[in-house]
Amino acid sequence: MPKQAIRTAVKVDLNTPAWEQPQLHNRWHPDIPFSCKVQPGEVVNVECLDWTGGQIGNNDSADDIKYCDLSRIHYLSGPIEVEGAEPGDVLVVEIQDVQPLAEQPWGYCAIFDKNNGGGFLDSHFPNAAKAIWDFEGIFCSSRHIPGVRFPGLIHPGIMGCMPSQELLDTWNEREKELVGYHASIGTDRVVANLPLEKSAHAGSADSDSAAKVGKEGARTIPPREHGGNCDIKNLSRGSKSYLPVYVKGAGLSVGDLHFSQGDGEISFCGAIEMAGVITIKCDIIKNGVKDMCMKNPMYIPGPVEPHFGPSRYLTFEGLSVDETGKQHYLDVNVAYKQTCLQFIEYFKKFGYSGEQLYILLSCAPVQGHIAAIVDIPNACTTLGVPVDIFEFECLPKEGGFDKIITSDCAFTSGK
Amino acid sequence: MPKQAIRTAVKVDLNTPAWEQPQLHNRWHPDIPFSCKVQPGEVVNVECLDWTGGQIGNNDSADDIKYCDLSRIHYLSGPIEVEGAEPGDVLVVEIQDVQPLAEQPWGYCAIFDKNNGGGFLDSHFPNAAKAIWDFEGIFCSSRHIPGVRFPGLIHPGIMGCMPSQELLDTWNEREKELVGYHASIGTDRVVANLPLEKSAHAGSADSDSAAKVGKEGARTIPPREHGGNCDIKNLSRGSKSYLPVYVKGAGLSVGDLHFSQGDGEISFCGAIEMAGVITIKCDIIKNGVKDMCMKNPMYIPGPVEPHFGPSRYLTFEGLSVDETGKQHYLDVNVAYKQTCLQFIEYFKKFGYSGEQLYILLSCAPVQGHIAAIVDIPNACTTLGVPVDIFEFECLPKEGGFDKIITSDCAFTSGK
Amino acid sequence: MPKQAIRTAVKVDLNTPAWEQPQLHNRWHPDIPFSCKVQPGEVVNVECLDWTGGQIGNNDSADDIKYCDLSRIHYLSGPIEVEGAEPGDVLVVEIQDVQPLAEQPWGYCAIFDKNNGGGFLDSHFPNAAKAIWDFEGIFCSSRHIPGVRFPGLIHPGIMGCMPSQELLDTWNEREKELVGYHASIGTDRVVANLPLEKSAHAGSADSDSAAKVGKEGARTIPPREHGGNCDIKNLSRGSKSYLPVYVKGAGLSVGDLHFSQGDGEISFCGAIEMAGVITIKCDIIKNGVKDMCMKNPMYIPGPVEPHFGPSRYLTFEGLSVDETGKQHYLDVNVAYKQTCLQFIEYFKKFGYSGEQLYILLSCAPVQGHIAAIVDIPNACTTLGVPVDIFEFECLPKEGGFDKIITSDCAFTSGK
Amino acid sequence: MPKQAIRTAVKVDLNTPAWEQPQLHNRWHPDIPFSCKVQPGEVVNVECLDWTGGQIGNNDSADDIKYCDLSRIHYLSGPIEVEGAEPGDVLVVEIQDVQPLAEQPWGYCAIFDKNNGGGFLDSHFPNAAKAIWDFEGIFCSSRHIPGVRFPGLIHPGIMGCMPSQELLDTWNEREKELVGYHASIGTDRVVANLPLEKSAHAGSADSDSAAKVGKEGARTIPPREHGGNCDIKNLSRGSKSYLPVYVKGAGLSVGDLHFSQGDGEISFCGAIEMAGVITIKCDIIKNGVKDMCMKNPMYIPGPVEPHFGPSRYLTFEGLSVDETGKQHYLDVNVAYKQTCLQFIEYFKKFGYSGEQLYILLSCAPVQGHIAAIVDIPNACTTLGVPVDIFEFECLPKEGGFDKIITSDCAFTSGK
Repeated sequence: MPKQAIRTAVKVDLNTPAWEQPQLHNRWHPDIPFSCKVQPGEVVNVECLDWTGGQIGNNDSADDIKYCDLSRIHYLSGPIEVEGAEPGDVLVVEIQDVQPLAEQPWGYCAIFDKNNGGGFLDSHFPNAAKAIWDFEGIFCSSRHIPGVRFPGLIHPGIMGCMPSQELLDTWNEREKELVGYHASIGTDRVVANLPLEKSAHAGSADSDSAAKVGKEGARTIPPREHGGNCDIKNLSRGSKSYLPVYVKGAGLSVGDLHFSQGDGEISFCGAIEMAGVITIKCDIIKNGVKDMCMKNPMYIPGPVEPHFGPSRYLTFEGLSVDETGKQHYLDVNVAYKQTCLQFIEYFKKFGYSGEQLYILLSCAPVQGHIAAIVDIPNACTTLGVPVDIFEFECLPKEGGFDKIITSDCAFTSGK
Repeated sequence: MPKQAIRTAVKVDLNTPAWEQPQLHNRWHPDIPFSCKVQPGEVVNVECLDWTGGQIGNNDSADDIKYCDLSRIHYLSGPIEVEGAEPGDVLVVEIQDVQPLAEQPWGYCAIFDKNNGGGFLDSHFPNAAKAIWDFEGIFCSSRHIPGVRFPGLIHPGIMGCMPSQELLDTWNEREKELVGYHASIGTDRVVANLPLEKSAHAGSADSDSAAKVGKEGARTIPPREHGGNCDIKNLSRGSKSYLPVYVKGAGLSVGDLHFSQGDGEISFCGAIEMAGVITIKCDIIKNGVKDMCMKNPMYIPGPVEPHFGPSRYLTFEGLSVDETGKQHYLDVNVAYKQTCLQFIEYFKKFGYSGEQLYILLSCAPVQGHIAAIVDIPNACTTLGVPVDIFEFECLPKEGGFDKIITSDCAFTSGK
Repeated sequence: MPKQAIRTAVKVDLNTPAWEQPQLHNRWHPDIPFSCKVQPGEVVNVECLDWTGGQIGNNDSADDIKYCDLSRIHYLSGPIEVEGAEPGDVLVVEIQDVQPLAEQPWGYCAIFDKNNGGGFLDSHFPNAAKAIWDFEGIFCSSRHIPGVRFPGLIHPGIMGCMPSQELLDTWNEREKELVGYHASIGTDRVVANLPLEKSAHAGSADSDSAAKVGKEGARTIPPREHGGNCDIKNLSRGSKSYLPVYVKGAGLSVGDLHFSQGDGEISFCGAIEMAGVITIKCDIIKNGVKDMCMKNPMYIPGPVEPHFGPSRYLTFEGLSVDETGKQHYLDVNVAYKQTCLQFIEYFKKFGYSGEQLYILLSCAPVQGHIAAIVDIPNACTTLGVPVDIFEFECLPKEGGFDKIITSDCAFTSGK
Repeated sequence: MPKQAIRTAVKVDLNTPAWEQPQLHNRWHPDIPFSCKVQPGEVVNVECLDWTGGQIGNNDSADDIKYCDLSRIHYLSGPIEVEGAEPGDVLVVEIQDVQPLAEQPWGYCAIFDKNNGGGFLDSHFPNAAKAIWDFEGIFCSSRHIPGVRFPGLIHPGIMGCMPSQELLDTWNEREKELVGYHASIGTDRVVANLPLEKSAHAGSADSDSAAKVGKEGARTIPPREHGGNCDIKNLSRGSKSYLPVYVKGAGLSVGDLHFSQGDGEISFCGAIEMAGVITIKCDIIKNGVKDMCMKNPMYIPGPVEPHFGPSRYLTFEGLSVDETGKQHYLDVNVAYKQTCLQFIEYFKKFGYSGEQLYILLSCAPVQGHIAAIVDIPNACTTLGVPVDIFEFECLPKEGGFDKIITSDCAFTSGK
């Protein structure tokens, strides 16, 4: 039988506030009503807003980043009911394509202010900055970071099924404990975001349910057992994700689309963030959670990732000795930070600012590996950067490099 | 002019104790005399002992692992003087080939006892265990881990130039500080190995120098700014390493050859350890350290890595919530441990023991990535396992898996 | 400056006969007027009809194939004027994306009747047959060829600049000579299609020009020096083609989009033919033809081709000894035919019909190589088939294979 | 049980004439006695002479090529008896490694004189020329072709089982018929080499058998149904070949090792020819010929081929219009010749001679594809050249290229 054009299961409206769109939500809670229903094996399109719900503009100022309202983010498309899915099953989601919206062929990557979101290197780069990326088919480039151009490894930052009440309670409990502990020792960072009624969006829930969702609903920043904001760059075209199901109908939600991201997504708003459409097909493995001992999701990447040959990666190394020379014990976070800083110092020689490189490292298809984690006291991490993303020769050579980059990314008006 | 057979710059003797061979050493210290000299651009072979200097046998008992003398390890081949290299230069080492010794076509991978070395998962697997791997050209397989077979990503675990006295002092100071701190808080783990006169081997040094090397020489377990025990699996055939030079003549040493290793080398003796020969060519980038802002080494992988397509990787995910359910703050180490445990639980369904899988994960060409490191409070790591290393179908499917593995790896005689 | 949505330089109308659309044409001739104009560096979308201009339906009969009017084909989109391009320049066309039309998520691949088009194996498969392929994002599958599914290596079959009158004359002369020679020796095949007034479509040309185009215009079936119907499967997303320019403004035309094709496109209508949209950017290399000694086009493939590992290709071999056992002298055509027949015989064991396999071989991403062409008297060719396109295990094994395919492709109503 | 060093099943002696070594032979005939025996599953080394049996020297003259005795070639190692193999079975040969001999780390690639061997482009390059290649681990480079360096895709040019008498008779008959036909039409080329008593080497055969082998034995230049001189560049490390068995014990022979070769092996002595050792393991698929409908061999490439990303191939195109402008009907040979000539013209701009490029194209890992074979009257072939084999930038660009190569390959003393 002839096949029809693919059905769009969730539509978004770029001209209506995200919080007024009932097919979206920004908390994880089992009481958020399904926004649509799909059959196993059915192929559907799901439209998604960008992660800020449209707060960031295609312009040359980072003011919108600096003042971005982080309580109004992650308006996810769903939850989608999958016919026949039951707790204990595994939902297999094949991502058949991801595309930016035709009317919005651009995205952005940004450094958040240390006091509003921050990022992995915020002690080095505390101020907001931004780069706009233009899309040309599979490629992107930025007027704010000249000299680079690369194909996107396009993917959703967030995908997951709704938690059961029991699982939700576990999340809230353990995160509350963490916050409590850090408060007790006087940590000055925000270490987790606990449930917050302000700006909670429970989709089409009635007011009682919406209130409950606001009080209890898990925030969307962290990845958790269900998947969620995993920010795994390889969940791209053709990939298959295996997601545990906790509630009848699964309640799959998806959003936070990225045109490209590097391992670590280090600047927090670290991918090339965009609005777009994702094409998916859901299947069910009955009792898969137990049969496959699943605690967290698994996935299989797709067959069409950009591929540079292995010898086209310039790879930086870092150890768990921090910038001050202090030795840490097998600390991968410290090692990866040093690895990132090595990349930044190297490419500054070409004239880039640190902020440009911090952004580039966040969103380009770089490979961050845990190389060695047992050689006390140093962990060793590596960061592979595909040299073919640069439009100039950047491999090591005698005599140093010429400064060829003369413009910078977007900053705040105050800077 | 016709080329001659390649010169062997360092030879080893499998039948003489490692500590009696003057072309080897097991400390990092600028006073260890050069064991040979090469010209820039010259291709040479360098023979290497396995990392334990021959303590481990091709047999079916892990007793030799349990009682392995960890002060007698890492007998490195060198230091090799490179004509013309000076402090501040960068030594470019191209690895042109790595091969096991023809007379010893096997290697081993092991779990060290928690009280003698330990490993990343030693709280789960505290007892010594071992697997012998047989080599068949580019492939390896093990009678102790049936059902798998894969091509080696053969490489040296250790490569680096001799530190200057100043750099050495820095190392000793910061590691001493770490040990002191952990002693003060009563940590029960060994967090670093400080200089140790016992079993120090200073190559061909005279007795005064040898005594100094014993007192001050940096131990070889950790990777450091010069490279050293980086255990980076991709430093394989055809790779190019960029190493900072600290002393006149560079003093390059190499050793700890691996037939294959996974990212993290998690079981500590986690690669397929072997004796062998490495073919290298050294070149010099004058003043490269400053010109390229190098703090740590960089490298470019070689063009002949085994390549499975991207969609042939079954990829596990893990978060910084530990086995007890406790939430940690963006801790990559915790996340990677959870990711490894997910792999182990999954493959146990086929009949493997946990020890077999811990070993396999350490030495098979698995990809350990830092996926997301900013989504408070959860870090997310991934572990990609090439399914083509298994001789049976192992992809997720409905109905669970049959137990097909019925034998185990080697344990200690007491177990 | 913010970027706008990408401009569509050529639109097509699926509901109007192709020959009534002035932005299309089906002959190569310098007098066909430009249908639009682009600037160097500008990104534009170009919509294209399928190669038959809509003659083939999404149904289960091959009657439309059998009676397809081959004079009414290849309605190309263009010619596109590229500002500043002059004879002797090289036009660089970057294909930034190719997509099927959203409202037509399917394509077809067919065997043409021996008396109406034929194909590489028409002595074995003389009758029309057809398979419809459904698209799911980057994947396709067919109800007429069960058991296979693969990602598309999507590309245009035809791309080229308008010939000068002089080049056109050369083409007509040499093809006429070929036809004359074959007529003289009584060949019973059509060996070339000479200019034909019937069904010629000269775009928006006035009647005088249109008449001239009909009389002289080169037919579109063969590839020629300008590119044209090259049917190179790797001219996909991200590829860059270098095309000689013969007339002022270049006059680039494109069409005959394929969702996927195998090397050789052996069944003639051998790709998965579709209507769609191609996104391109044109640049100019001044005097490139002379500077780079170009006689024919060159190209660089894109970075996102589907990639299966090398060891996931089952590869068949064939020699220049034909089916009757007759020895030919280094004839690659004979060898490749034998290679294709080997593939067909092997996979028939699984229950497929020869027609299904002939179609599959034409449109799946198979690699056809000229392995050896100097070992008299046998040429040797190879055909690499990615085993991951099959949903069942198909590698050689003891005991033979089970018949698992029980349905067939579409045939003509008479059959 | 501990594994021993790998057994060498066939040894060669570089200092004894090839024809005096009984474990070698240079004809295909079932009466040549087995030279050794292996068990299914057993891993063995097999040493091989270079294809000329040592006629070519590491020097700067092509005189040895010009006067090479082509009756004294292809001294193959074997035949190897495989225990249990019977006619109708399929022999599975896994190539586990191929290495040059340690004492001979070089090879050669040459153009044969048109009157002594010739080659694909001998009408353009009729005179003998030669390049010596030095090996550095996985890499090779040549003093005769500066500016290039690449990893070898090392493989045997020849591998196959002994024919039955019946198959041998078929070969002789069809090749004799070809020679007869060409004689009748007055072809001035040698189109096939029929059995020749001169220089026949039947291994350890007694004089009666040796005489029979000389009279009937098939010459070794062409590939045939059993494999033989297939010259398939991808039969490299880790590949698996499936070879039909025609006689009890199979009688596997191997030789003509190549460090690297391009598709087509166009200059005839077109690979980097070398002496070396191949490590193989044989298994048997009972009745495989019938069960898998095998007429010719099949193979699966290995997982460690050099891999450049797809977008690192500069790809040339060619059509079946010859150098004189004459149109041929779908003739792949003509098209591939044009494609090769395009490559040569392009790279001459950098200063290379045509002979250097003809040699380079023969032995570098280039990909020769049959792109389209149905678009009458033009066949289209492509030739992908990995740009990373060049040590300079060679991609198309405005302004043409500088001549940077100033020396040439080796020629004959008369030239």
